[in-house]
Amino acid sequence: MSIYSIAVDLGGTNLRIAAVSGEGKMLEKVTTGTEVQLGRDHVIREMCDAIQSLMVKHRAAGELAGIGIGVPGFIDMDTGTVMRSPNLPDWERFPVRQEIERRLGAKVILENDANAAAMGEKWLGAGRNIEHMAMYTLGTGVGGGIVMDGRLWHGVNGMAGELGHFTVESEGHPCGCGSRGCLEQYASATAIVRMAREAIESGAAPDLADSARGNVEFTSRGIYQLAIQGHASAQKIYQRVGRALGIAVGSMINALNLPMYVIGGGVSSAWDAFAPSMFQELKVRSFIYSITAPDRVQQGQKHTVVTIALMGSDAGLYGSARLPMIAPVAQTEAVRTPASS
Amino acid sequence: MSIYSIAVDLGGTNLRIAAVSGEGKMLEKVTTGTEVQLGRDHVIREMCDAIQSLMVKHRAAGELAGIGIGVPGFIDMDTGTVMRSPNLPDWERFPVRQEIERRLGAKVILENDANAAAMGEKWLGAGRNIEHMAMYTLGTGVGGGIVMDGRLWHGVNGMAGELGHFTVESEGHPCGCGSRGCLEQYASATAIVRMAREAIESGAAPDLADSARGNVEFTSRGIYQLAIQGHASAQKIYQRVGRALGIAVGSMINALNLPMYVIGGGVSSAWDAFAPSMFQELKVRSFIYSITAPDRVQQGQKHTVVTIALMGSDAGLYGSARLPMIAPVAQTEAVRTPASS
Repeated sequence: MSIYSIAVDLGGTNLRIAAVSGEGKMLEKVTTGTEVQLGRDHVIREMCDAIQSLMVKHRAAGELAGIGIGVPGFIDMDTGTVMRSPNLPDWERFPVRQEIERRLGAKVILENDANAAAMGEKWLGAGRNIEHMAMYTLGTGVGGGIVMDGRLWHGVNGMAGELGHFTVESEGHPCGCGSRGCLEQYASATAIVRMAREAIESGAAPDLADSARGNVEFTSRGIYQLAIQGHASAQKIYQRVGRALGIAVGSMINALNLPMYVIGGGVSSAWDAFAPSMFQELKVRSFIYSITAPDRVQQGQKHTVVTIALMGSDAGLYGSARLPMIAPVAQTEAVRTPASS
Repeated sequence: MSIYSIAVDLGGTNLRIAAVSGEGKMLEKVTTGTEVQLGRDHVIREMCDAIQSLMVKHRAAGELAGIGIGVPGFIDMDTGTVMRSPNLPDWERFPVRQEIERRLGAKVILENDANAAAMGEKWLGAGRNIEHMAMYTLGTGVGGGIVMDGRLWHGVNGMAGELGHFTVESEGHPCGCGSRGCLEQYASATAIVRMAREAIESGAAPDLADSARGNVEFTSRGIYQLAIQGHASAQKIYQRVGRALGIAVGSMINALNLPMYVIGGGVSSAWDAFAPSMFQELKVRSFIYSITAPDRVQQGQKHTVVTIALMGSDAGLYGSARLPMIAPVAQTEAVRTPASS
């Protein structure tokens, strides 16, 4: 019998919900008007209503494998609670999984949003033919997810994959995590805008200053536009992005020697502006990469691929949908009989 | 029936060989006079003679599980060859495993020496009660090994665990691997001596200069002696060791959230000189460590342990002995019938 899942992307502002078939077809995707700042109970109510209407509409798609929910924050996989989420403070230590399972009578899996995106790329995207990969999601911050033997690696506290918090500059810019010089401070959309402002303030980037005053959108995307139009100071900023990625991914290659590292998130669309300096840095930082890069590997040896993500902003929805389909049996035993909500 | 293994530690200068029981008892350990610089064929001949005499002597210990050989360098696990070893250049691309299996008619497993040490600590040392750990071996260089689900993680090319080549200072001291500012440049015995020389040359360490001219052994151990005697400039060097370790281990914790990180190798005996600054740095560099350190973890949550290795310089021998005992069946099929040597 065919199966399908419901996937939820609980973002910082909005709620996106999708029905995805067992073959990886997006059956329907809705962006609800639900404002996350209206609070947990409101969001859970609206989320469950939207999930139920998708379940009714797509019941012909087969058996419901379950509901996967991507959340920005640390998740305790054992209890299905959000342990820490700066964007969703009122969700912390609340039994989210239990509450939604009770309301809907279906298996629910809570997952960190960057982990969910990694699973989406593993299932249907860049990593669809490999069993081990690490994914970097370059957005407002930098998230990460590690897939080993086809499954997410959670670590002992469910906190693994914080790849945005590799130190790349030991005395670098302070980071919200309490450290300094984390990858996130050089490769996120926020960091790109900050680095542009720093360049303007230092007087080294008159062309960026013109743009910041003028009509050009002063965002990571706007700065990328300037870079591809040939503005050297904008190009320099993306070279710093690439260099930081090269340092962080290089250390990961040295540690784990995985076959694939996927760069996703909104900033990854500026690939051509940062990738050349990233690859240059990778060959310096990782001896393993320098002999296993696709253009250098010897006949018969497996190569190391560092590549752009393919699933765009839906990677997390696909990944969240996939999770209940591959969940170990133990996790499904929590739900046996549908409860009335 | 009881079993035992023969373990070989093929160092840069000498050859150590041991018989180890299935329960982890060191039955006998010999350091052969074999000089590794006399070349591969000479070493293999003497190694096989020594192994055979241990096999004869300890045949009462049970069935031979196999022979584990720790080698400094990259190993191709599929073919049992040394792919790259700066200390043993004439061993590269030679079918070591096949040759020794042919001579002795026993299962042979070749392993990177730092990986073997990690397995030794996992089996009988600091990691004996956990299933996942990373080990840092601070010696002439800095090696590493990662154990996941009780087994060594090799990566796709057998090169995983190069934890000495995490970038800790992006513009730091050049490293033999081709990069700059690797952990190895701040936490190896070689690095400690170099940093002491740098401090003397800069004029900032007159007490070290006195020692370097005088009777004190000018080695990492000698500098440690000065540190515990209260010499500030020697203490500062070990603080740099601790800081570099904190940066590198912190990134690993953020990536993998393992329950244990073990610091071994000769330099680890200076633990009290570098550990305080390492722990201080870890709490800054890793948000995960800051909330899961043994002194900070909340009730019911698993904690993260960073600790000193327990097996001393024999960790590699114990680990090499363990490998044939837990080798998957596929690897044992290579040897069915003893061949005459």
